[in-house]
Amino acid sequence: MKIKGILGLALMLIVAVFSLAIFSGSTVGIGEMLPSDPAEVMMENFKFVKNIMIWFMLMLVAFLMLFIKKFEWGVALAVLLSAAGSFIVYLLIQDLYFDAGWSQDVMLMGVICAITVVIAIGCFLGTVKMWQYLLIGLLFAPVFALIEWVMGNVTLYDNVYTQDPGGSMLVHMCAAYFGLGCAIAIRDKRAFNEPMYTSTHSVSFVWLASMLLWVLWPSFVTALLPGDMVFWGMVTCYLAGMGSILSAWIVCVAIQKKVNPLIYTYAMLAGPVAIGAPLLMVGPWAAILIGIIAGAFSAFCFIYLQPLLCKKLGTLDVMGVHNLHGIGGWIGAFSSVVILAILSTAPNYMVEVGSEAAVTNLVMAFIVFALSIGFGIIMGLILKFTRGEMTDEQIFSDEADFIRNDAPAE
Amino acid sequence: MKIKGILGLALMLIVAVFSLAIFSGSTVGIGEMLPSDPAEVMMENFKFVKNIMIWFMLMLVAFLMLFIKKFEWGVALAVLLSAAGSFIVYLLIQDLYFDAGWSQDVMLMGVICAITVVIAIGCFLGTVKMWQYLLIGLLFAPVFALIEWVMGNVTLYDNVYTQDPGGSMLVHMCAAYFGLGCAIAIRDKRAFNEPMYTSTHSVSFVWLASMLLWVLWPSFVTALLPGDMVFWGMVTCYLAGMGSILSAWIVCVAIQKKVNPLIYTYAMLAGPVAIGAPLLMVGPWAAILIGIIAGAFSAFCFIYLQPLLCKKLGTLDVMGVHNLHGIGGWIGAFSSVVILAILSTAPNYMVEVGSEAAVTNLVMAFIVFALSIGFGIIMGLILKFTRGEMTDEQIFSDEADFIRNDAPAE
Amino acid sequence: MKIKGILGLALMLIVAVFSLAIFSGSTVGIGEMLPSDPAEVMMENFKFVKNIMIWFMLMLVAFLMLFIKKFEWGVALAVLLSAAGSFIVYLLIQDLYFDAGWSQDVMLMGVICAITVVIAIGCFLGTVKMWQYLLIGLLFAPVFALIEWVMGNVTLYDNVYTQDPGGSMLVHMCAAYFGLGCAIAIRDKRAFNEPMYTSTHSVSFVWLASMLLWVLWPSFVTALLPGDMVFWGMVTCYLAGMGSILSAWIVCVAIQKKVNPLIYTYAMLAGPVAIGAPLLMVGPWAAILIGIIAGAFSAFCFIYLQPLLCKKLGTLDVMGVHNLHGIGGWIGAFSSVVILAILSTAPNYMVEVGSEAAVTNLVMAFIVFALSIGFGIIMGLILKFTRGEMTDEQIFSDEADFIRNDAPAE
Repeated sequence: MKIKGILGLALMLIVAVFSLAIFSGSTVGIGEMLPSDPAEVMMENFKFVKNIMIWFMLMLVAFLMLFIKKFEWGVALAVLLSAAGSFIVYLLIQDLYFDAGWSQDVMLMGVICAITVVIAIGCFLGTVKMWQYLLIGLLFAPVFALIEWVMGNVTLYDNVYTQDPGGSMLVHMCAAYFGLGCAIAIRDKRAFNEPMYTSTHSVSFVWLASMLLWVLWPSFVTALLPGDMVFWGMVTCYLAGMGSILSAWIVCVAIQKKVNPLIYTYAMLAGPVAIGAPLLMVGPWAAILIGIIAGAFSAFCFIYLQPLLCKKLGTLDVMGVHNLHGIGGWIGAFSSVVILAILSTAPNYMVEVGSEAAVTNLVMAFIVFALSIGFGIIMGLILKFTRGEMTDEQIFSDEADFIRNDAPAE
Repeated sequence: MKIKGILGLALMLIVAVFSLAIFSGSTVGIGEMLPSDPAEVMMENFKFVKNIMIWFMLMLVAFLMLFIKKFEWGVALAVLLSAAGSFIVYLLIQDLYFDAGWSQDVMLMGVICAITVVIAIGCFLGTVKMWQYLLIGLLFAPVFALIEWVMGNVTLYDNVYTQDPGGSMLVHMCAAYFGLGCAIAIRDKRAFNEPMYTSTHSVSFVWLASMLLWVLWPSFVTALLPGDMVFWGMVTCYLAGMGSILSAWIVCVAIQKKVNPLIYTYAMLAGPVAIGAPLLMVGPWAAILIGIIAGAFSAFCFIYLQPLLCKKLGTLDVMGVHNLHGIGGWIGAFSSVVILAILSTAPNYMVEVGSEAAVTNLVMAFIVFALSIGFGIIMGLILKFTRGEMTDEQIFSDEADFIRNDAPAE
Repeated sequence: MKIKGILGLALMLIVAVFSLAIFSGSTVGIGEMLPSDPAEVMMENFKFVKNIMIWFMLMLVAFLMLFIKKFEWGVALAVLLSAAGSFIVYLLIQDLYFDAGWSQDVMLMGVICAITVVIAIGCFLGTVKMWQYLLIGLLFAPVFALIEWVMGNVTLYDNVYTQDPGGSMLVHMCAAYFGLGCAIAIRDKRAFNEPMYTSTHSVSFVWLASMLLWVLWPSFVTALLPGDMVFWGMVTCYLAGMGSILSAWIVCVAIQKKVNPLIYTYAMLAGPVAIGAPLLMVGPWAAILIGIIAGAFSAFCFIYLQPLLCKKLGTLDVMGVHNLHGIGGWIGAFSSVVILAILSTAPNYMVEVGSEAAVTNLVMAFIVFALSIGFGIIMGLILKFTRGEMTDEQIFSDEADFIRNDAPAE
């Protein structure tokens, strides 16, 4: 099965290479794509920096999930393969189907697509074969492009569209429910038996990743904003992050006396997750409030909802993706609905907001939820039936994937 | 005591949340804060990037102090709690008391305040309870805001103010002496008995942190400079850093034959610390000279002054903060005084410099020293009396703070 | 020998310090160097960010080579010393000999020079004394400045110069063959006997470094480009990187069944290495093709060429530098020649390209190869004769360089 899978992927690569011949025309005329206005050039160059920062975040997500000591390298490779697969296909879709042209915005949406699938695989990491992560990436990109298109084009009212600049719905809810859908379909009960032993240093990598993700988050939520709104996105993002750093700690200590680092390092990011939708609707002190609520809820769900939900669904959410991205995404969606509803009654706000805006965000949250989990289950079934035999030793272990050179009997 | 402390903090959070209601008005009118001039927008966006880089540095400071293997996670959490506490209170002070408005400069000063307290806790890390790091953060912010105000407003002469663009005094001296003040007041003799065992990898994290801090330093010293002076700040910062990379190594090898990595990784940063005050007063080859002096002095003090000073003070400067930030800060202050004195006699310098400038910087260095150590001692007394009982096992150990899941008998 | 070497270096430092006196004049008139046009200031500030990112990459190269557990700290220190030595001398050459003035471009070329020597030492890392890494840095800078000058000034045709914006030749080929030249001259057979044991975490650091290097690479290849060409450099760099992420994995699995992480983490960077020369000549889908070829070849060479070449040369390429930077550099050079030849027959390309351009790039690749390996051998001989005695225990071990504080019998 392994060889078959790899040959299949090699075939896809060859097809991709052939398609290059068709597009070789795109080489001609690069010069015409370059902006000439100095202000526009500087804005593109600013997005260049944010683009790198978001790729940086994508790689850090791998280290956030690197705590199972016997599966460290496997997580890194799985992240690379799924990211590469989804990024390439997403760009192919934009270039071929939407004829979008090449711009920083398209490149940014590409890495945002890739980061979404990287979050999603956290739900079932270690329960599928290595080559399947590439398959997931390749097949996820069209799903993401569809959901992105729906959010940008489908509406109940004229000229009223979903407001989600920081991706609470498009990235976090989509990742959580697509991943959960996969996990439900794969449903490998053996995941429950895995003790997931860590070491001091494997968890130190997680601290590093979590703390740097927190730091880089403003570049993510402001990725596609016009230059003059970027600052405000940073203010609310960092203040929401402050809120969850504090509230996640208080909840952890209040309930469990000691802090579980694999809960805290995740829950402290719930504020930045939740602020995505209401990013530009709130002031700094409301942002911190959203962060406090999100951090507290996320930690609470890691402790109480995780075992319950996993039992109900009959499958393990391996990295607890739902407790951070699912719950955080819902808090972001709901808080944006509440704020839009309040603002629609406040005539002195900078722009006029009708109650339709609140309804649109609310309805779209459920649409994203339904599409993500639906496609996730389909993806999970594909994974289940192409996975082949997987021994108990292969679960949560990269033993079969890597050559090691450890010192003998240290 | 632990529960009381946490409840107290929760109460503070509730108060913070209530204060949100009062400030909810700040939501209205965000639009008016946004700059409209394209050049101004780009400058704000450039500061956006530097803001992220400085937050990045703050988190790296945690990994610089992560070498005690049984206290790794504790350091990370202590850094997060103290940073969050001080950042929030600093912004509250700016918004409430100074009515400063929201700008990148205010946000930058917020993270610079937070990084200062994070450096300061290095003096007594591992000798107080986890919840107290949050308390330190909350109470440090007003001290920092006061010292910042003094440096910017108090002067002996009309229109002659302290020149310290890169924070040799405001950040490094303040951190070192505030932290040392705390340590003196806490004075837990048991710190001397701790062997502080490391592992290969725990020290590799320190190398990573130190090397990346060195790299990111120009964003810190140029944080608040106008756009056209940023380049020169980078030149002198990197060249000072080169100097201390070399001189710290030579001193380590010359005195101890072998390099102590926990001295070298700190002392190699002394150049960037010291260049803070004379940042824009020197050329590249004078900057490297300052770096050479600072790196050599810092390494020297780690080896010879540290045991002496700790014995005299009756307390351990746990991370040797004084040898990097204290000594480096003084070298920065003194070198700026010397250079200003020389420049006051050189009529062909770009701006006219009077001898008053040298006097101002000299006097201010002592004021910052006095204020920092004074408030540090007060803070230390508060910590001592709220700490409650702390067993020998709790010193330099995060055993009591975290749930672990290590593999049994590996 | 050790003491002599260190004293010699200290002497050099003193000479450097004296030279400061001569240049103290450069302090005067800083103001005149600052650009006044706002657009120029913003471009300088954009380069400020890229400068930091490239320094970041330099430090990550250390962690890419950090996998030999008993030599981790030694790699970090060797990287710092060689980088500092080459950076300072490169800037001295620019300031003294070329009278280049201070600008971001000079600072950028300085760090690019430093990163080149840091890559080069990978060929013989662990087979020379610690102080010799500083010596290598000091002596490499003039070689680099010479090759840079040759590439920018020597040509067969009027006004036709080498096109290598991303450094396939200047950085990667130069590093690989200079390093290989050193290794050939040192020729310490004991390197072959070293098992190079790793640990899970020492390799996790390598994953981190490789993944972040991949992310930051666009800042490196676009370092000196005008603002309006930076975007296209990012597009082709990331797409080439996608190609090598996939093809390196396929080749590893196809040949060895399991992935050797120390091959994969290197070969996945071959695309970005190879795209350096043809960076702006290709469209995105041709870039991915170059990346696929480079990644596959690099992985292939790690597996088959490495043992063969090392046997033929009688020396070990310790980090396999040649398989990534040498092979990747040649692929970059050759693909740029092929593309330039094709474009010279395509009249509708944005700029007119004559067949002379292809010839120029081809000839220059061989010139760079010859100069690098030639100077490398001279450098290697210097290293061999100044190295003094080196015991078997000192090979690939930093035992003699560092003070350790490991826990007893854990």
